[in-house]
Amino acid sequence: MIKAGIVGGTGYTGVELLRILASHPAVKLTAITSRGEAGQRVSDMFPSLRRRVDLNFVAPEDAALEQCDVVFFATPNGVAMKQAAALAAAGVKVIDLAADFRLDEAGWEKWYGMSHAAPELLAEAVYGLPEINRARIRKARVLANPGCYPTAVQLGFLPLIEADAVALDHLIADAKSGVSGAGRKAAAANLYAEATDSFKAYGVGGHRHLPEIRQGLSRVAGGRDIGLTFVPHLTPMVRGIHATLYARLTSELSEADLQVLFETRFAGETFIDVMPPGSHPETRSVRASNHCRIAVHRPQGGDTVVVLSVIDNLVKGAAGQAVQNMNIMFGEEESLGLTMTPVSP
Amino acid sequence: MIKAGIVGGTGYTGVELLRILASHPAVKLTAITSRGEAGQRVSDMFPSLRRRVDLNFVAPEDAALEQCDVVFFATPNGVAMKQAAALAAAGVKVIDLAADFRLDEAGWEKWYGMSHAAPELLAEAVYGLPEINRARIRKARVLANPGCYPTAVQLGFLPLIEADAVALDHLIADAKSGVSGAGRKAAAANLYAEATDSFKAYGVGGHRHLPEIRQGLSRVAGGRDIGLTFVPHLTPMVRGIHATLYARLTSELSEADLQVLFETRFAGETFIDVMPPGSHPETRSVRASNHCRIAVHRPQGGDTVVVLSVIDNLVKGAAGQAVQNMNIMFGEEESLGLTMTPVSP
Amino acid sequence: MIKAGIVGGTGYTGVELLRILASHPAVKLTAITSRGEAGQRVSDMFPSLRRRVDLNFVAPEDAALEQCDVVFFATPNGVAMKQAAALAAAGVKVIDLAADFRLDEAGWEKWYGMSHAAPELLAEAVYGLPEINRARIRKARVLANPGCYPTAVQLGFLPLIEADAVALDHLIADAKSGVSGAGRKAAAANLYAEATDSFKAYGVGGHRHLPEIRQGLSRVAGGRDIGLTFVPHLTPMVRGIHATLYARLTSELSEADLQVLFETRFAGETFIDVMPPGSHPETRSVRASNHCRIAVHRPQGGDTVVVLSVIDNLVKGAAGQAVQNMNIMFGEEESLGLTMTPVSP
Amino acid sequence: MIKAGIVGGTGYTGVELLRILASHPAVKLTAITSRGEAGQRVSDMFPSLRRRVDLNFVAPEDAALEQCDVVFFATPNGVAMKQAAALAAAGVKVIDLAADFRLDEAGWEKWYGMSHAAPELLAEAVYGLPEINRARIRKARVLANPGCYPTAVQLGFLPLIEADAVALDHLIADAKSGVSGAGRKAAAANLYAEATDSFKAYGVGGHRHLPEIRQGLSRVAGGRDIGLTFVPHLTPMVRGIHATLYARLTSELSEADLQVLFETRFAGETFIDVMPPGSHPETRSVRASNHCRIAVHRPQGGDTVVVLSVIDNLVKGAAGQAVQNMNIMFGEEESLGLTMTPVSP
Repeated sequence: MIKAGIVGGTGYTGVELLRILASHPAVKLTAITSRGEAGQRVSDMFPSLRRRVDLNFVAPEDAALEQCDVVFFATPNGVAMKQAAALAAAGVKVIDLAADFRLDEAGWEKWYGMSHAAPELLAEAVYGLPEINRARIRKARVLANPGCYPTAVQLGFLPLIEADAVALDHLIADAKSGVSGAGRKAAAANLYAEATDSFKAYGVGGHRHLPEIRQGLSRVAGGRDIGLTFVPHLTPMVRGIHATLYARLTSELSEADLQVLFETRFAGETFIDVMPPGSHPETRSVRASNHCRIAVHRPQGGDTVVVLSVIDNLVKGAAGQAVQNMNIMFGEEESLGLTMTPVSP
Repeated sequence: MIKAGIVGGTGYTGVELLRILASHPAVKLTAITSRGEAGQRVSDMFPSLRRRVDLNFVAPEDAALEQCDVVFFATPNGVAMKQAAALAAAGVKVIDLAADFRLDEAGWEKWYGMSHAAPELLAEAVYGLPEINRARIRKARVLANPGCYPTAVQLGFLPLIEADAVALDHLIADAKSGVSGAGRKAAAANLYAEATDSFKAYGVGGHRHLPEIRQGLSRVAGGRDIGLTFVPHLTPMVRGIHATLYARLTSELSEADLQVLFETRFAGETFIDVMPPGSHPETRSVRASNHCRIAVHRPQGGDTVVVLSVIDNLVKGAAGQAVQNMNIMFGEEESLGLTMTPVSP
Repeated sequence: MIKAGIVGGTGYTGVELLRILASHPAVKLTAITSRGEAGQRVSDMFPSLRRRVDLNFVAPEDAALEQCDVVFFATPNGVAMKQAAALAAAGVKVIDLAADFRLDEAGWEKWYGMSHAAPELLAEAVYGLPEINRARIRKARVLANPGCYPTAVQLGFLPLIEADAVALDHLIADAKSGVSGAGRKAAAANLYAEATDSFKAYGVGGHRHLPEIRQGLSRVAGGRDIGLTFVPHLTPMVRGIHATLYARLTSELSEADLQVLFETRFAGETFIDVMPPGSHPETRSVRASNHCRIAVHRPQGGDTVVVLSVIDNLVKGAAGQAVQNMNIMFGEEESLGLTMTPVSP
Repeated sequence: MIKAGIVGGTGYTGVELLRILASHPAVKLTAITSRGEAGQRVSDMFPSLRRRVDLNFVAPEDAALEQCDVVFFATPNGVAMKQAAALAAAGVKVIDLAADFRLDEAGWEKWYGMSHAAPELLAEAVYGLPEINRARIRKARVLANPGCYPTAVQLGFLPLIEADAVALDHLIADAKSGVSGAGRKAAAANLYAEATDSFKAYGVGGHRHLPEIRQGLSRVAGGRDIGLTFVPHLTPMVRGIHATLYARLTSELSEADLQVLFETRFAGETFIDVMPPGSHPETRSVRASNHCRIAVHRPQGGDTVVVLSVIDNLVKGAAGQAVQNMNIMFGEEESLGLTMTPVSP
C-alpha cells in the first residue's frame, strides 16, 4: 500500500482527493493536515465523507509526513515550495496541486509575485500532464500538477500543434469554469446569490494560467513562441471546465482529417475521449470523473478550427490528475482508483 | 456473475442503474431494452457512459430477458405488471422500480387508475425496504422497489412508530425533491427556465406516494391506521430528497433519548447514518450515494419531534436501493457495488 | 418629495431598497451611508444601478440624516436602536429593516443577546405588517419592518386565527428560503459551491423568527399562547420564501369555506393574492414584486388545513414592505412605486 | 394610447412583452392570440401576471388585429411573413420578433429552409437595431426585430468596424446564452435536470444567427465580407447573453484609445453602457432590463482586442428591443416604458 499524506485538506481539491483516495485500492491515507482545524474529524467538516474517511485533521508538525510514500499539497500557492525539499530528501514523493512548481523561476516570480524558495527543486520538478510527459513523470520526485484551465486547453491544442497544423501566433482559448474553481474561501464574489444565474469573464488582462499554457504549448512546439489570448469565465455550475479553442489552419486538413488527427493522437489514452464528428461535449458528461472529452470542428469549411474540450476541474483538473500522476510515479496501473463513472444527471 | 437486464433504460432511474451496475463486481449487464431507441448505442444517448457501458438498446422482443438472472423494470407504471409473470415463471427475479407492486390491489386501482394485470403476483410481491423487510426480500421473486418519497419518509418515522412514541393520527411529512424525480420526459413544467430559481408545492390534494407511505407505516404500527398529511415540493436541484417530519410525542422522551432510539434502531444498517445531535443533514451529503442521513430534534423542549431525513432520490430512492435489494436476493453482501462516496461539492 | 436616507446600503436589502426607491415617484434619495465604502460610487459596487442611482456612499457622520424625512436602516441587528432616538427627536421617521424593534424588550434580550438601547422607543414602535396593523402604522414614528419568514407565515395563518378556526397549540410552519435571505456577508456556508444543488434545514432548535411569529400571531389571537414549530430551510434559489403551514381545524369548514374565508379576509389588500382553489403558488410568480400569493387546501378532507404562502424575501419580506410602510406613514397611496410586475421566467 | 396586439403570446418572448407592455404608459394591450389556449386567461398560464394583465387568449381570427396600431409577432419562424401583408395594408405596424424579415430572401431560404411568403415586404422591412438604424426604423411599416445573439455581437463589434480598426476576415464571437433562449417548448434537452450544472457549445457547424450577424456587420463595413466564426453555448442560467468577441487590430489603438472609441460611439445611447476600463460586465447586471453593457480590453498589449458585451436575451435581445423599436416608430421617447432597473441579485 502507498502511504499517502495530504497537506491542507480543507479546500475543494483536498476533499476531492479524499473522496478519490478513500476508495483507491493501493493507497492508505495516513495523515491530513490543517493547522486551523487540527483535532477536528474530517467527516465533521465534510459530512459526505462520514463512514468513508476516519481521520482527524492534524497540525502539520504532528503529521509525520516524512514517513509517507507520497505527500499531496492541496495548499495555497507558496506553501509547497517551502516544504518539498525536506520531504524529497526523506525520499517522499511530492505532488503539488498548487502552482509552486509549474512555471520556471522567472515566470513564477513575475506571475505569483514571490521569489521561489526552492529553485533547484523547481528546475528538477516535472510538469504532470501525463498525456505529454508520461516518461518523465515516472521518475519524478517532485511533481507539478497542472492547473485546471491549462489541462483542458493544452489537451485540446495538443494534436494541432504537434502536427504543426495551425498558426501559433493567434491562438484563442475562451474558457468557462464552474465556481468550485474559485475554491472554498469565503469571498463575497463567490456567494450563491452573487454567482448563480449570471455569467461573466474575469482576468481578461492576464490570468496566471496564461503563462502556464504558453509554456506548456511552447514546449510542444519545439520552443517556438505561442501567441495566446486566454479569457476565463465564471459559469453558474459547481464543477466543469469547457474550453472553446480557436486556431487558424495552416495546412489543408478537412474536418475528417482533423478527426483522424485527434483520434490517432489520443488512441492509447485512457482518459481522453475524442467524441464523434459533430459532437458538442457537455461538462456534465465528465462530472466527478477523470475524463477529458474533446470534439474538433471546422465550421463552414473555413480556415478556423474549433476545438471543444471539457473536464471536471476538480478531477482531471486537480485531484484526479494528481492521483493519475501518483499511479504513474509508483508503477501502478494509470487508471487505478480512477474508474468511477461520471455522475449524470 | 449475475446476468442483469434492464427494461426501459432511457429515463433517469435507467441511466442511474447503468451507472451503478456498470461498476458492480458481481453483475454482468446483458440487455437493456427500449422500443423507441432500439439499435442506438446507450452511450450515444448518455455520453457519461462512454467507455463504461458498451451496449445497444434492443427491442423488448429481442432481449432474451428470460435468460437473465434478474430483470429491472425502469418503466412507467403499468408495464412491469404485464411482463413479470412470464419472467417469474422462467425463474428470473423481477425488481420493479415503478409502482406496480407497491400497493395492495385496491390501492393500486384507486391511485393509479388501472386494474392490476397480475393480482396473484402482487399478493406475493415483497416491498423492498431492506431496513424493514430484509428477511422477506431474501426470498422474493418479485420485488417492489419503494418510491423515493416513501423511502425517505418511512425511514425517518420508523424508530418513532416502532417504539410507539408518537401519535399516529396527525403525522406530517413535508418533503422536498430535486427535479430529476419528475423523470426525463419532455414536459414544459420541468424545463430549466420553469423549474430553476423557484420553489413550489404540488399534489397537496393527494399524491400517489401518500398511500404507499401510509400502508408501509401501518404495517410497522401493527396494522393501526396512519393519519398522515403529505406535502411534496419541487426544489431547484437535480438530485435529493429532504423529508421534514413532524409528530407529536406521546411518551416522555428527551432529545437525548430520541437520539439513542434512532442510533440503536439503525446501529447495524450500512446505509442509514444517524447524524450527531443538533445536525441538519444536507441533500448533497448523500449525492450519488446510497446513504440515508437522519437527524432527530425536539425543538424548544416541546412535544413535537422533528426528523430530518435525506436521500439521493435516484440512488437510495430508486436505482441504488434496487441494487441493494438485488444483493440481498442473490446472497451477496448488501453493500456490494454500492460503496461509492458521495460527490460533494 | 419624501427625502429618504438609507443607513447601511451594501447588503441585499440595501440594494433592493435602492432599486425600488430609485423609481419611486414621490421619493428623493438623499443619502446612503456605509463606513466601509465611504466615497465609493454606489453603482461601482452594484453595476445593476448604473444610470439609475447617482450617489456615493458617505460616512454616517457626513450624511445629514436628520434632514431626511425618513431613514431606512438596512443594518445588522443592534445598530438602529442606537440611532433611532436622535432621528425621531429630529422629526425623522425611522424604518428599521433589522430586528431591533420587532420583539418586546424581554424577547429582544433573550433572542438577540443584547440589552436594548432604547426601550422607551421600543415600547412605542409599531410592527409594520400593514395587513394587520395599518392604522397604527399611519401614525408611527419608529417602524419595525417584519422579518421575511414572519411576513409569509403570519399572512398565511392570519385568516384562520382571526376566525378562531384552528387549534393554536400545534401550529407548524415549514418554511423555505432562497439564499439571499442569508445576506451578502462572505460566509463559507453561503458560497455557490456549498449552497447550490442541495437542500437543508437549519436552526431547528430555535430560530430568531420564531418568537416574532409567535408574538404576532398571539396578538391576532387576542393574547392567547401560540404553540408553533418553525423549521426554516435553505433552498438553492436567490429570492423567495415558500411557507407551508399546517394547522388542525377546530370548526367545520370545508375547503370551499376556507377559500371564502381567505378571499374575504384579503379582499381589499393590494398585495395579497388568494389563488384559486387547488393552486400551488410558485415563488417565482412573485419574484422582484411586493406580492404575497396564498393558497389554502384541506387535503383528503381531513382535519388538517394546509396553507401555501409565497413572497419575495427581499421585497414583501424586506425592502418592498418597508416602502409600503413608508407610503402609509406619509399618506401616499400604499402601492406607489410598488407596481412592478414579477419577473418570470 | 397605442393599441397593441400580440400574436402568439405563450412563449418567453410573449410573456416578457406582456410584462413590459402592461406597464407601458402609452400602450393599451388590446389582444393576445393563441389558437391552442383560446379562451384561457393569460394570468392562469402566467401567474406572475395576475392583477397585471386582464386578458384572455383569443383565436387569431377573433382578434381584430387590423384595428390595432401595432402588432407584435412572438411566433415561430414562418408565421409573421404570412400575415404581415394584410396588416400592413390595413395600416397596422408590424414588429416581428421571429426571423422572417431579418435576412434577405436568399439567406432566408438557405438558413430557414422555406421560401418566403412576402418577398416584397421583406425587401421593405427594416432591421430594428436602433443603435445602427434609428432613422429607417422611424418610418418602418414592417420591422424585423434582431435576434438575441446578433444584438449582443453586433453592438460589441460596431465601433471597431465603423472605425475600420480590425481585420474583418477572422472575427470570432464566442457567445453564451441562458436557457430561456431556447424557448418554452417542451424538449428533453432543455429540462432542468439536463441543462443545469452543465455547460456546452451547440451549433458549431452553423447557427442561424451567423448569417444575420454577418449581414448586419457587412452593412456596417460598407458591404465588405465578414469572416466570422460564431460559437454559441448554453449556460445554466435563465436570462442573459454574454458575447466574448475577438478581433485583430489593424490600427495602432491603445486600450485607452479603444475605450474612447467605444465611449464616443455610444455617448448618446440610452441603453448602451460602456463600462470603465478593465471591467467585466456580468449578465445579471442587466437582468430584466433593456441595457447592453460593454467592456473593451486589449490583453497583454497584444494585437487582439477583446470585447465583452452582455444583454438580457428576453429584453434587449427580444421584447425590450421590440418595444424600443415601437417607441421610435410611434414617435415616443425611446426609453418610454423601458426604465426598469435591473433585478440583482
